[in-house]
Amino acid sequence: MTKSSSSKIRVGILGASGYTGGELIRLLANHDQMEVAFLTAERRAGQKLAAVFPHLAALEVPELIKIGEVDYSALDVVFCCLPHGTTQEVIAGLPSHLKIVDLSADFRLNDPAVYAEWYGHDHRAVALQHEAVYGLTELKRDEVKAARLVANPGCYPTGPQLALAPLLAAGHIMPEDIIIDAKSGVSGAGREPKTNTLFAEVGEGVQAYGVASHRHAPEIEQGLSEAAGQPVAVNFTPHLMPMNRGILASIYVRMAEDTKISDLRNSLHQSYDSEPFVHVVAEGVSPATRDVRGSNQCRIGLFADRLPGRAILLTVIDNLVKGASGQALQNMNLMCGLAETTGLNQAPMFP
Amino acid sequence: MTKSSSSKIRVGILGASGYTGGELIRLLANHDQMEVAFLTAERRAGQKLAAVFPHLAALEVPELIKIGEVDYSALDVVFCCLPHGTTQEVIAGLPSHLKIVDLSADFRLNDPAVYAEWYGHDHRAVALQHEAVYGLTELKRDEVKAARLVANPGCYPTGPQLALAPLLAAGHIMPEDIIIDAKSGVSGAGREPKTNTLFAEVGEGVQAYGVASHRHAPEIEQGLSEAAGQPVAVNFTPHLMPMNRGILASIYVRMAEDTKISDLRNSLHQSYDSEPFVHVVAEGVSPATRDVRGSNQCRIGLFADRLPGRAILLTVIDNLVKGASGQALQNMNLMCGLAETTGLNQAPMFP
Amino acid sequence: MTKSSSSKIRVGILGASGYTGGELIRLLANHDQMEVAFLTAERRAGQKLAAVFPHLAALEVPELIKIGEVDYSALDVVFCCLPHGTTQEVIAGLPSHLKIVDLSADFRLNDPAVYAEWYGHDHRAVALQHEAVYGLTELKRDEVKAARLVANPGCYPTGPQLALAPLLAAGHIMPEDIIIDAKSGVSGAGREPKTNTLFAEVGEGVQAYGVASHRHAPEIEQGLSEAAGQPVAVNFTPHLMPMNRGILASIYVRMAEDTKISDLRNSLHQSYDSEPFVHVVAEGVSPATRDVRGSNQCRIGLFADRLPGRAILLTVIDNLVKGASGQALQNMNLMCGLAETTGLNQAPMFP
Amino acid sequence: MTKSSSSKIRVGILGASGYTGGELIRLLANHDQMEVAFLTAERRAGQKLAAVFPHLAALEVPELIKIGEVDYSALDVVFCCLPHGTTQEVIAGLPSHLKIVDLSADFRLNDPAVYAEWYGHDHRAVALQHEAVYGLTELKRDEVKAARLVANPGCYPTGPQLALAPLLAAGHIMPEDIIIDAKSGVSGAGREPKTNTLFAEVGEGVQAYGVASHRHAPEIEQGLSEAAGQPVAVNFTPHLMPMNRGILASIYVRMAEDTKISDLRNSLHQSYDSEPFVHVVAEGVSPATRDVRGSNQCRIGLFADRLPGRAILLTVIDNLVKGASGQALQNMNLMCGLAETTGLNQAPMFP
Repeated sequence: MTKSSSSKIRVGILGASGYTGGELIRLLANHDQMEVAFLTAERRAGQKLAAVFPHLAALEVPELIKIGEVDYSALDVVFCCLPHGTTQEVIAGLPSHLKIVDLSADFRLNDPAVYAEWYGHDHRAVALQHEAVYGLTELKRDEVKAARLVANPGCYPTGPQLALAPLLAAGHIMPEDIIIDAKSGVSGAGREPKTNTLFAEVGEGVQAYGVASHRHAPEIEQGLSEAAGQPVAVNFTPHLMPMNRGILASIYVRMAEDTKISDLRNSLHQSYDSEPFVHVVAEGVSPATRDVRGSNQCRIGLFADRLPGRAILLTVIDNLVKGASGQALQNMNLMCGLAETTGLNQAPMFP
Repeated sequence: MTKSSSSKIRVGILGASGYTGGELIRLLANHDQMEVAFLTAERRAGQKLAAVFPHLAALEVPELIKIGEVDYSALDVVFCCLPHGTTQEVIAGLPSHLKIVDLSADFRLNDPAVYAEWYGHDHRAVALQHEAVYGLTELKRDEVKAARLVANPGCYPTGPQLALAPLLAAGHIMPEDIIIDAKSGVSGAGREPKTNTLFAEVGEGVQAYGVASHRHAPEIEQGLSEAAGQPVAVNFTPHLMPMNRGILASIYVRMAEDTKISDLRNSLHQSYDSEPFVHVVAEGVSPATRDVRGSNQCRIGLFADRLPGRAILLTVIDNLVKGASGQALQNMNLMCGLAETTGLNQAPMFP
Repeated sequence: MTKSSSSKIRVGILGASGYTGGELIRLLANHDQMEVAFLTAERRAGQKLAAVFPHLAALEVPELIKIGEVDYSALDVVFCCLPHGTTQEVIAGLPSHLKIVDLSADFRLNDPAVYAEWYGHDHRAVALQHEAVYGLTELKRDEVKAARLVANPGCYPTGPQLALAPLLAAGHIMPEDIIIDAKSGVSGAGREPKTNTLFAEVGEGVQAYGVASHRHAPEIEQGLSEAAGQPVAVNFTPHLMPMNRGILASIYVRMAEDTKISDLRNSLHQSYDSEPFVHVVAEGVSPATRDVRGSNQCRIGLFADRLPGRAILLTVIDNLVKGASGQALQNMNLMCGLAETTGLNQAPMFP
Repeated sequence: MTKSSSSKIRVGILGASGYTGGELIRLLANHDQMEVAFLTAERRAGQKLAAVFPHLAALEVPELIKIGEVDYSALDVVFCCLPHGTTQEVIAGLPSHLKIVDLSADFRLNDPAVYAEWYGHDHRAVALQHEAVYGLTELKRDEVKAARLVANPGCYPTGPQLALAPLLAAGHIMPEDIIIDAKSGVSGAGREPKTNTLFAEVGEGVQAYGVASHRHAPEIEQGLSEAAGQPVAVNFTPHLMPMNRGILASIYVRMAEDTKISDLRNSLHQSYDSEPFVHVVAEGVSPATRDVRGSNQCRIGLFADRLPGRAILLTVIDNLVKGASGQALQNMNLMCGLAETTGLNQAPMFP
């Protein structure tokens, strides 16, 4: 990302001052076939990126500008990191030559009625809503390759869908009895100052939030229903954790009749053993968020429950990488015909 | 706890250099009818308490001694904070005039076969095992008052049993479908140096452990079976959190037929509205571990699940207080005929 | 603090929804001679305290009201926890029968010119500024007892002044060579949502701020100048730490000629050995913020530097207790003729 | 590091199960001209790396073996991550064709008398002690290039020497009045289980340690004396912080007569503006450890003190990268004739 070179794919990031924007820039710094051409941030327009993200001060990237100032003709691809709700109109106004990965929730739900129910207003770009491909890469690789607009999955839905979709598709687990207890680092709540994400509110404590009402529930259910070939509803309970990054989802399922834990394990291995970023860990291993920190990896653990006929799945991701910017880049690589792993090969960081 | 006075109850603490021992001393500093007479710590014998716990340096307490040096005739009551396994023989050797609260796991399981299964050896004091009263105070108050030996509950089992026992007793929830996802601060793992509880291993991450194999599962099941009047088996999955104190248990249950969420709420209120330490929080409130930090409180939240017929319970305690030393003192107060809340009225500390 | 009783001192807290307000309420819950009569919080008026501070839900206290609704005739004393700047006019308007401890910075600097220089405007209540007593209790006990208005010290200035004032007064250290490197928990920055105190900004990192420009510098210098009998200027460099509570000040000084480290130690012991809250720790002991968490204690450590003629002082307090609400209560106790330690005897909490 | 290829430099890591060993492997995963040929770990020999470092499970590296099993003829270079004290004899026994970077303290002090004073025994490989080049890369680049054995600097000494050496060499600051207050993450204390680095001991607190007696003091003084051309003694006070990674050193200096803050700034810019890893930040900017997390960068800030004639320097590094394994790789790159930045270009990670 040092010098502008006409052979590189020119990238614009709309909304570059939030955590997912910053993380994209970090990842792109390691990407040898893309270069950052524009960065927008309405309130910080005119400032250098170093003023917003001192950790990126050593990178040669353009100054922050307003969305209205972007010259889209100089771009090949756009990552959209804007807040939910405003995004749909911005994307509807983008020129059609651009490939777009949208990291907001605006295009994740493909049923206008479900969108309206959970977001409280009609979708303002229904045609795009239908066109958008849901970018859970491992499950949608072919559609992503062909897409112009990808709706990047939410951070919470990524791990549970990766673990559950193959098991539902194979009929190994009961679709009516899925409980997802998810634990997330605070960066998932964004960089807007709010009382409930202040250090002194979150430090030294844990709390569930959005109980039985979090907007990632319908997103998970949409994916699982598709995998199961029938409507699936889940319990999804997110918890806020005193850490910056990472999501652990502890998933409690009932196995189908005559199904053994080894069937589940085989199914997961078959689905993911050739995947670069999704790893089924060895029997008896409990995956930890620290194992994937800073990387695009998802690790999946599987245990037989003490309760007969039940199983426990554990998935970990870095919410800002596989749960946001990393998966966005993975998708964009595919959309651009590049190797899917380009720029995403950093090993996790521990401690 | 300043000057020795013959009218006060004389307390000995066996194993005073661990976290539960230190917490007991902290709580006793606020207790106007008990005084610390002996503190033991084998490896730190001969040292001042301040060398082991600088935060308690301002207290006037005796030096640490070895167990063999204790003059039991000068004691009225004993708190035993020794490691699991060695405790049973120590307690079997104590004079019979002493009232004892044991904070180890040694006397919690009252079935010798279950004990042997989970701890890998036969119990070495079976008569005491049968005599010991399980000290979940709110559920066992009368037995505790009459007891000579109380087995103080484990940190994890306390909250879930308080939430679930009344509901099982009333037949409001299905006993075969209980999932307990628990999140604990690191102090619950004790003060012995181990790699997996080092700051750099735990900080900035979360992980499940003891999946489908944690020894607190049979303890929970024992209490719930008693409440339900039939055998109850549960899923219990503990997680290690990057915080010092606190346990949040997120509990997923299926309601009995024709039972409404309001039935559960009423049942909890009826059980606990007159309790000094257990509080059912208002509808829509998600209790946080920070709400009870440093106090003997347990707070219970209740939500209808989006899944029809299911409910979500959330319980929070401070693992070192209501989950250990606070409940131990609550029990000892009762055993000594004192007001149950003596020395336990400190408000929680936030932030 | 359970039932209103005419014999208790009736307390009003202006600005009860911030951290220092909440901490005062926590401490008053243990105070048997004061009761909370009014709590104000402009934006939260009409709500129960539990909505703002769930950890205090078990207390019986009045609902939050607006300042304009307070009936001052029903009050004996007022703690003012309002933001800097607006406080001076509010206090100027209070009836004269009230004893007041102000936790803001508004009355700490007694020189109107210094105030104007650091706060950018003339003081709006200069008469009160002259009347106010600076409430560093151990150094100003007699003035505090007689005061009607006490300016409670800032969190940072408390520890360093306690350590340095006796040494300067005795001529043991050089007044022109004092360096104070202070490390504070995030609660010191208050509860207003700001980007720089979000969990994800502060977690897993440390940073100096307000370098050579923090407003607590002139407050420290005012106190040290008085102790030294000559103008003292200091280096004061605060740092933001990933923890909720606590301040450690590491202080680097040059000893006067012919002064030995034992002279400093003797001087500190002489000053504080009879104090209930200030403790000089043993030789070789490095005090930690965890040793005072939740308590009104200040601990002071002293080391000879390897550099000849130099010494190192280390002071720790809990910024919300001895650094704010605890010291405020200590002062108010004195102003009301009560024992100074009333309500402040809780032992520190660790871990 | 995927497949063994004869054209790559073959690397052995002695002591691969500690934090610096793990970090080296993480960095080498991004290095296209080196491959890991051997990893040793005495107590974990026979295990896969994934058992010791799950975050590195996706890498293809050899199993852990004992030192005695290493075939040195198959190696080109060795990183030695063994504990202080035992290292010197191990290195003395290595074949002479190997280039070695030692991350222990054994060869950092080049004066046998100073070594004996601080480590309590005579050095056991004095000839090597004289041969070893102190690898503070930016200050010793030419010697490192020519070296066979490099003593990698300690984590604490790295930042302060980078900031102070040019200023002392230029005569801009007084050598007799240097105070270094350093704050470190817990990973700097290593992975051996010790009570004082348990999460529950370190979390929510801060403490100075090794006051006036830390072994990194003579290392800093050795480098600064060389830069100043005269003996320099410093105050060095380390503090343990509740975070995994990062060191902030806050350095308080007195400027030479007739020296202005701009002289210091110019001197730093001149020294480092062409360096890839050392950055002097803009006026008014306070560098944070989060700005360099996971990277090999050192950032240096400079402020005029309020005290006339004094200045404040702030340096931040990641203790495991520029403070250990990153600088080790930087040195080894030079020793092997590679570009210094190979494998070290990852951008810092925030949050």
